[in-house]
Amino acid sequence: MVEATLGKATPLAAEELHKIHAYWRAANYLSVGQIYLLDNPLLREPLKLEHVKPRLLGHWGTTPGLNFIYVHLNRAIKAQDLNMIYIAGPGHGGPGLVANTYLEGTYSEFYPNIAQDVEGMKQLFKQFSFPGGIPSHVAPETPGSIHEGGELGYALVHGYGAVFDNPDLIVACVVGDGEAETGALATSWHSNKFLNPIHDGAVLPILHLNGYKIANPTVLARLSREELESLFVGYGYKPYFVEGSDPETMHQLMAETLDRVIAEIKSIQREARVHHNSHRPQWPMIVLRSPKGWTGPKEVDGKKTEDYWRSHQVPLANMARQPDHVRLLEEWMKSYKPEELFDENGTFVAELAELAPTGDRRMGANPHANGGLLLKDLRMPDFRDYAVEITKAGTTIAEATRVAGRFLRDVMRLNADTRNFRIMGPDETASNRIDAVLEATDRMWNAEILPEDEHISPDGRVMEVLSENMCQGWLEGYLLTGRHGFFSCYEAFIHIIDSMFNQHAKWLKTTRHIPWRRPIASLNYLLTSHVWRQDHNGFSHQDPGFIDHVLNKKAEIVRVYLPPDANTLLSVTDHCLRSRHYVNVIIAGKQPALQYLDMDAAIKHCTKGIGIWEWASNDRGSEPDVVMACAGDVPTLETLAAVDLLRENFPELKVRVVNVVDLMTLQPETEHSHGLSDKDFDSIFTTDKPIIFAFHGYPWLIHRLTYRRTNHKNLHVRGYKEEGTTTTPFDMVVLNDLDRFHLAIDVIERIPKIYYTAAYVKQMLYDKLIDHKHYINKYGEDMPEILNWKWRYYGSDGDQTPLQ
Amino acid sequence: MVEATLGKATPLAAEELHKIHAYWRAANYLSVGQIYLLDNPLLREPLKLEHVKPRLLGHWGTTPGLNFIYVHLNRAIKAQDLNMIYIAGPGHGGPGLVANTYLEGTYSEFYPNIAQDVEGMKQLFKQFSFPGGIPSHVAPETPGSIHEGGELGYALVHGYGAVFDNPDLIVACVVGDGEAETGALATSWHSNKFLNPIHDGAVLPILHLNGYKIANPTVLARLSREELESLFVGYGYKPYFVEGSDPETMHQLMAETLDRVIAEIKSIQREARVHHNSHRPQWPMIVLRSPKGWTGPKEVDGKKTEDYWRSHQVPLANMARQPDHVRLLEEWMKSYKPEELFDENGTFVAELAELAPTGDRRMGANPHANGGLLLKDLRMPDFRDYAVEITKAGTTIAEATRVAGRFLRDVMRLNADTRNFRIMGPDETASNRIDAVLEATDRMWNAEILPEDEHISPDGRVMEVLSENMCQGWLEGYLLTGRHGFFSCYEAFIHIIDSMFNQHAKWLKTTRHIPWRRPIASLNYLLTSHVWRQDHNGFSHQDPGFIDHVLNKKAEIVRVYLPPDANTLLSVTDHCLRSRHYVNVIIAGKQPALQYLDMDAAIKHCTKGIGIWEWASNDRGSEPDVVMACAGDVPTLETLAAVDLLRENFPELKVRVVNVVDLMTLQPETEHSHGLSDKDFDSIFTTDKPIIFAFHGYPWLIHRLTYRRTNHKNLHVRGYKEEGTTTTPFDMVVLNDLDRFHLAIDVIERIPKIYYTAAYVKQMLYDKLIDHKHYINKYGEDMPEILNWKWRYYGSDGDQTPLQ
Ligand SMILES: Cc1ncc(C[n+]2csc(CCOP(=O)(O)OP(=O)(O)O)c2C)c(N)n1
Ligand SMILES: Cc1ncc(C[n+]2csc(CCOP(=O)(O)OP(=O)(O)O)c2C)c(N)n1
Ligand SMILES: [Mg+2]
Ligand SMILES: [Mg+2]
Repeated sequence: MVEATLGKATPLAAEELHKIHAYWRAANYLSVGQIYLLDNPLLREPLKLEHVKPRLLGHWGTTPGLNFIYVHLNRAIKAQDLNMIYIAGPGHGGPGLVANTYLEGTYSEFYPNIAQDVEGMKQLFKQFSFPGGIPSHVAPETPGSIHEGGELGYALVHGYGAVFDNPDLIVACVVGDGEAETGALATSWHSNKFLNPIHDGAVLPILHLNGYKIANPTVLARLSREELESLFVGYGYKPYFVEGSDPETMHQLMAETLDRVIAEIKSIQREARVHHNSHRPQWPMIVLRSPKGWTGPKEVDGKKTEDYWRSHQVPLANMARQPDHVRLLEEWMKSYKPEELFDENGTFVAELAELAPTGDRRMGANPHANGGLLLKDLRMPDFRDYAVEITKAGTTIAEATRVAGRFLRDVMRLNADTRNFRIMGPDETASNRIDAVLEATDRMWNAEILPEDEHISPDGRVMEVLSENMCQGWLEGYLLTGRHGFFSCYEAFIHIIDSMFNQHAKWLKTTRHIPWRRPIASLNYLLTSHVWRQDHNGFSHQDPGFIDHVLNKKAEIVRVYLPPDANTLLSVTDHCLRSRHYVNVIIAGKQPALQYLDMDAAIKHCTKGIGIWEWASNDRGSEPDVVMACAGDVPTLETLAAVDLLRENFPELKVRVVNVVDLMTLQPETEHSHGLSDKDFDSIFTTDKPIIFAFHGYPWLIHRLTYRRTNHKNLHVRGYKEEGTTTTPFDMVVLNDLDRFHLAIDVIERIPKIYYTAAYVKQMLYDKLIDHKHYINKYGEDMPEILNWKWRYYGSDGDQTPLQ
Repeated sequence: MVEATLGKATPLAAEELHKIHAYWRAANYLSVGQIYLLDNPLLREPLKLEHVKPRLLGHWGTTPGLNFIYVHLNRAIKAQDLNMIYIAGPGHGGPGLVANTYLEGTYSEFYPNIAQDVEGMKQLFKQFSFPGGIPSHVAPETPGSIHEGGELGYALVHGYGAVFDNPDLIVACVVGDGEAETGALATSWHSNKFLNPIHDGAVLPILHLNGYKIANPTVLARLSREELESLFVGYGYKPYFVEGSDPETMHQLMAETLDRVIAEIKSIQREARVHHNSHRPQWPMIVLRSPKGWTGPKEVDGKKTEDYWRSHQVPLANMARQPDHVRLLEEWMKSYKPEELFDENGTFVAELAELAPTGDRRMGANPHANGGLLLKDLRMPDFRDYAVEITKAGTTIAEATRVAGRFLRDVMRLNADTRNFRIMGPDETASNRIDAVLEATDRMWNAEILPEDEHISPDGRVMEVLSENMCQGWLEGYLLTGRHGFFSCYEAFIHIIDSMFNQHAKWLKTTRHIPWRRPIASLNYLLTSHVWRQDHNGFSHQDPGFIDHVLNKKAEIVRVYLPPDANTLLSVTDHCLRSRHYVNVIIAGKQPALQYLDMDAAIKHCTKGIGIWEWASNDRGSEPDVVMACAGDVPTLETLAAVDLLRENFPELKVRVVNVVDLMTLQPETEHSHGLSDKDFDSIFTTDKPIIFAFHGYPWLIHRLTYRRTNHKNLHVRGYKEEGTTTTPFDMVVLNDLDRFHLAIDVIERIPKIYYTAAYVKQMLYDKLIDHKHYINKYGEDMPEILNWKWRYYGSDGDQTPLQ
């Protein structure tokens, strides 16, 4: 269990060493060129201020290290025909990855304008961080990237997600030593307990210990060697140290170490696969301790720059004011000897170019980094087969997520052989009641297993770890490499990955407009144990705001569904699993609840996304007095119960019930492709009747979606207004004025024709609320009339006779 | 550097052992009682179904372990007069903390209704997770709590935050082994590199290795002992293992271990303080490996329950359907022998009660857990002294955050002695340009320091670590224990702590209504490097959505400020630092930008929160044709430049310029105490003129805030619509139609009197946009007319003559 140190071997013969060094110089040259130059790419004329970009943007510090790693990985790939992709945690080292994909030829294949000649190099330089050009990070535009690395912390989880079910793939995963301080990264090391050496590929973590972040040293760089080793051994790795700054020594050491760790990975895999032994091994990793800004200016204006945080961004700046910086830049770039690297035409010299792998083995061309290329449809069972039988709407009880769980179980079964579907959950698969999936597969587990453990094995396809970050990151990596997945989570705690969602949504938005990127499978969330039914927990577990967050992202890639019952949940889930390149958010309850739609009705309702529930309305053939709209399972229940109260007390009142499954239908069609036309909206919601809208989430979201609609002025929304605690389910809606009694009062207050006569009814409704409080404070559960309420009108249109 | 194991010592004499065990039994008895019983608290009559709560809510599994720790901490506190508080990471073990504070007497002091007699015990039991009662977690209602533990992951950061600058305080910090899998927790262990043994107190982490989470084993419980040890040694701790299940042995072991680690903590502190040596020691920690659901039912319905995940929530349920469960419950509770623990009156017997510490030493009464009690005002410099000199609005250039940094520097200086102010930042203090603070103090650093390091020392009060989670968590812990702080962060990445913010906001909301909780200092965010000026980075760094997230929380505790320039930022910062019990979000740029208001005007503007900028308007004495509103520094600039275009081209046009600093003014006064009355709103925004609102964030937020206002129908908002990349600053606004040209066009399109005649101007504006694209694509920077634009009207009202 101690770390590995290597001898003074020299695996690289002089010529190879020379070439590898030259290759690295070329990558460094091109990196500096991208950051600085507008023109004169090969420095064939003396460098002048006008050759330099007016705005110097980008990050040098991390780049030489990333380049160093790249050339050595190339060597290993080529020598051993490896199937490898490269994840750059410090994605701000974008110039390095662009430079390397340019050198290996992939860049010009994707972007023929950036050819391998002088003019191409000039464009390559100019476009970087330049208007109309490319971003400064390892963004979707960069060939070979599945990880932009803009927001730090997700390199390792993406790497692990990518290698699950990809037994031949190795992800070389560079982790910044600053990045390693983030929460997501710090827990990601434990991903090795969820990796099966038989069916999964390998992640080779390379800790890029360059000592600094933006303006501080890093924690890991300032531990004793013993602590650092202990830490990684504790995380389950065997760390190999590659440390130094002398290029020659470092090349030898890196080459030797890489050969060694690749051999170890292969031997672990061979051992596991031949003997069918999936026992967790101690996976190798590399700690690369090298100077930040390696090979860059040692000092600038008398201040230490190489091997210091000052090299993080642009070590030489203020060119216009400090002409000596132009000279320093020229010296620096010339130190890479471009004349030895690029020929007359500006083309990378052939004897160096041949160091790179060829075809799809080039890391910029590996199809795993453009997952849509590899994506296959899921085999899908017919979701109709899982339908809950409904004879009378609003009388049957079922647990929606449990029903969906059976469907997911069979999705799992049908795709067991292709191994391209996984389910993620932060220890909540059972709690969220989709545990039928465990009939089809186990939970993935590759730490110790005890006899009493159930549904846990190294072959499991349900990934459970108490880290929403890891669930999200693994799933992203899995999807980005062309597979499918499903993430079920407590609604409140999905906020933990708000920013990860942001980054994924940005990735989807951008790749949609990059022609060579193929669409990937959608990221599907099932948010349950939701705000209204966190019975065991209370206030800290009550937050329906993820929808608000999601809707800030581009309409073209986000979808939000609130199926009111099990059959609609089935239909929506089926739809989401077949969709591409979206983020789908499904919110549905796990508790026993009334069911409304049979499968046929559910499909129609979900296809439209919004609809009048005729069986619950009594306004057919006339104008409604009020529109009662609802979205979400609990609000739907309360709306129907309010309608019941209204119909019982005001038989003459014409009530229209509208249910919204697809929240995007509310938006104008100009804003979202699912948006209803104004004509359709007006005909459903009228242009002048009061609308009482019972919403699952924060009420103002409905206003935000509908403020341009004709009848917005008559829209009155009830929803969660941040009132909660550990109490009864009905009390939760009462606390937020979303209960049947408040909804009925809301109607009464908005309909002049009953306003005065209804005083008695209104008083009765207030009395009910008082009864409710007394009852629950005494008995601790909801009143029987609440608990046992069922829907009871099935007469022909306008018939007010309740069923007995 | 290896772990510590202890001998077979027996520090507890027989009687003490007996008493400690009895105390633990009492806590366990009361915990089970809270989860299950409505009545018959002392089981003096045979237990019947009607004594049992109809809804069984709560979490047993973690509770006996939490209780075990509590009684042993009590012993240590009492024996050594320790100043200690208790943080329960698995806060779902609420019954345990309630039980213990009840036993020690604090509970009844805070809640006299819950007396130490039979009736009190009955109420204690009933209220738990009961309507009108208390939440199931270690919520704000629980004496001694600064950490609800509902959302897992923040125990350690809260603990460290609490002990900073509290040299005498020890936080006993229980970390769930499941919780330890979260990202936040996994990185929090490194907090020890930010702790100074001289000035700070100590955190004693107790890893609660009970093996399971909700329905899974935990990763840490299934590592080899060697790996586990290595991990914690790697994190910088010296782990002591307390392992087993036999109570007697475990009591001895725990007592011995606690004595040992407390002695070690004291000796570390003595060593550091006497020799003034703040070198980072290897701090002790405890790994408590004990069964989940310890002392609970071994099996339920033939299934393993004790020492298994099945004991996580309520091991015995379905009482009504399974009457044998009532009997099992009775047996279980009687196994604690309540008759030995509580006297005739139901009062805890005196000889056990005296085991607890007394007065403020009781962990439920320690004032550090009710930080408002200890809170002292900051000494504040006069922010006016830092003002940027403004002679003509819109002509001077300054960097707002740099100016604020000088003010913060002096806040830091003035409070250096009292040591009650810290600044947090994820490696961005310099990048965000508030680094003047480093003239007053260093960055806190207690790992290795090299000669070339600058502004880094173990005495620093600026906390920089590349983890937004740690920054947030430390700050929360620091504030909750009665101190002040300031957190500066890139705007986009603050989303990483969305859910932590949620929990803190919920804490503030709840404590506002708990009479014995005193208000604490506000949590102040400075979000900079914002969406419009992420010049080096691009799309992944562009997200202004934190405001949307914040505004979902209760109006009474959230405030959002968008100061348009340096002097307004100074005024707002001063205000926030003096405020109490809010979350204040300040959004301000760090780039050189035009300045508008002199200090006097800035103070007035910020005090109102919104105002007409008369110097920029020309409608005085008449009705405006259009209201140009803006919020945020960049939108303000674009608005003024648009006004310039309009005034130049349409001298007859009456334009009113409104700037919003305090976003909450836009909301109705019924929704937020800062909200303008409708009268005021209407007089500023008119009831019928077009309003063009240039907003810093997502545009629909403004609609959400204003949809009830009279003139909402004429409101047209421009903001960030998720278009971005690495480009020029002006191009960013162009991409989102927020630029001066689009704004001017927006106006033209909405004012009939110029609509037709303006066709030429409109075309000119479109041409400008084309010029812009060509220019930046060629030169990489914005057109000189953009870069050099300044405000130029200072005539008397209505005077259209630009200044030369
Ligand atoms: C989550 C997050 N917080 C803050 C930043 C701002 N930031 C960009 S680079 C950087 C330092 C990165 O240091 P390291 O990971 O060591 O990378 P390297 O030294 O290789 O550049 C920081 C803090 C970020 N990109 N992501
Ligand atoms: C961030 C977060 N994710 C999920 C949950 C749901 N949850 C509640 S308790 C629990 C298991 C906790 O396990 P552990 O920390 O080991 O506590 P213990 O075993 O002592 O109960 C989970 C996953 C949560 N509370 N917080
Ligand atoms: Mg680094
Ligand atoms: Mg546990």
